[in-house]
Amino acid sequence: MLEDAAAELFLEQGYPATSIEQITQRAGVSRNTFFNYFGAKADLLWIDLDQSITALVTALGSPTSGEEGTRLEQLSALILAVAAEHPAARVPWAFSQAELMGTRTDLEASAPARLLALAEAIQAFVAPEEPEFIARTIGSVAVGAIAAGVAAWIAAGVRRERLETYVADALHPALTGFTDLAKGTR
Amino acid sequence: MLEDAAAELFLEQGYPATSIEQITQRAGVSRNTFFNYFGAKADLLWIDLDQSITALVTALGSPTSGEEGTRLEQLSALILAVAAEHPAARVPWAFSQAELMGTRTDLEASAPARLLALAEAIQAFVAPEEPEFIARTIGSVAVGAIAAGVAAWIAAGVRRERLETYVADALHPALTGFTDLAKGTR
Repeated sequence: MLEDAAAELFLEQGYPATSIEQITQRAGVSRNTFFNYFGAKADLLWIDLDQSITALVTALGSPTSGEEGTRLEQLSALILAVAAEHPAARVPWAFSQAELMGTRTDLEASAPARLLALAEAIQAFVAPEEPEFIARTIGSVAVGAIAAGVAAWIAAGVRRERLETYVADALHPALTGFTDLAKGTR
Repeated sequence: MLEDAAAELFLEQGYPATSIEQITQRAGVSRNTFFNYFGAKADLLWIDLDQSITALVTALGSPTSGEEGTRLEQLSALILAVAAEHPAARVPWAFSQAELMGTRTDLEASAPARLLALAEAIQAFVAPEEPEFIARTIGSVAVGAIAAGVAAWIAAGVRRERLETYVADALHPALTGFTDLAKGTR
């Protein structure tokens, strides 16, 4: 597998020193095969996570009619459903082994586009029911909570619980105030 | 002023095509003078904002004893005090003119280090009174709210209100649930 070959090489010689050619050679596949799966070397840093981000953006972009509750309530349910589907067997090694692999700089560089896409999808999802400024804030705050949940899951080590537990524990208090705001109870 | 010379050049020919030499020449100062004020060209994108981030990190790092309220309550007060001191006369042009200046890519690249530093300072500030996971989540969520407030302030145009208004409106609902959590009311 490309991911396994990449992880090995990143551990052996570091992410910056590893080329796409070395990865495809180790995996025994062609350069074309690599680009069938990944758009760039940095995409290897986001394996599994990118799939879940895409799944969440897709789910937010095609809300099913007839769902119960407000968009804000549906938002939590959608996020936790995607977190529940996230593969538990593999922790994103580019994060958990950032020091050994030398991935920190490239993780930071490749994070904003992903976080912004997620924040904008969340903003658009709640926009029909929230004032524009609040919808934008919910997007930004929810991404902050999701990131904290994912980071805690990664940091928790081999005895970690399921991802959705951490995401739920971060997301719930982060969104409580916005639910109150919508209900006019504060 | 270096900032004015830089803003002119970025508008005329774009951020990527402008060199530090061109900026110092336009401003009539030496290269050494530039590096007395800025560590890199990208620091020009964060004028004023960097000062406020530094002021907030400093304030969070040296809490005055005898303050009333929980750390979480003090946190909002500290953030809003720094927002109130933020210069109102100049909106960060690298953000407001991002399309014209071609600054978006470099803004994204230079944002994570700043947001992480702020999130970590907030986490450390509330850490004495909050569980570790919650302290980390508060850092991440508060930065999301601050970013939404600053973005709304920048986007609001010439009739914008004061920065602290937007930051307060974003921060208050984002932290409500954590206050409830600490009080055990939810």
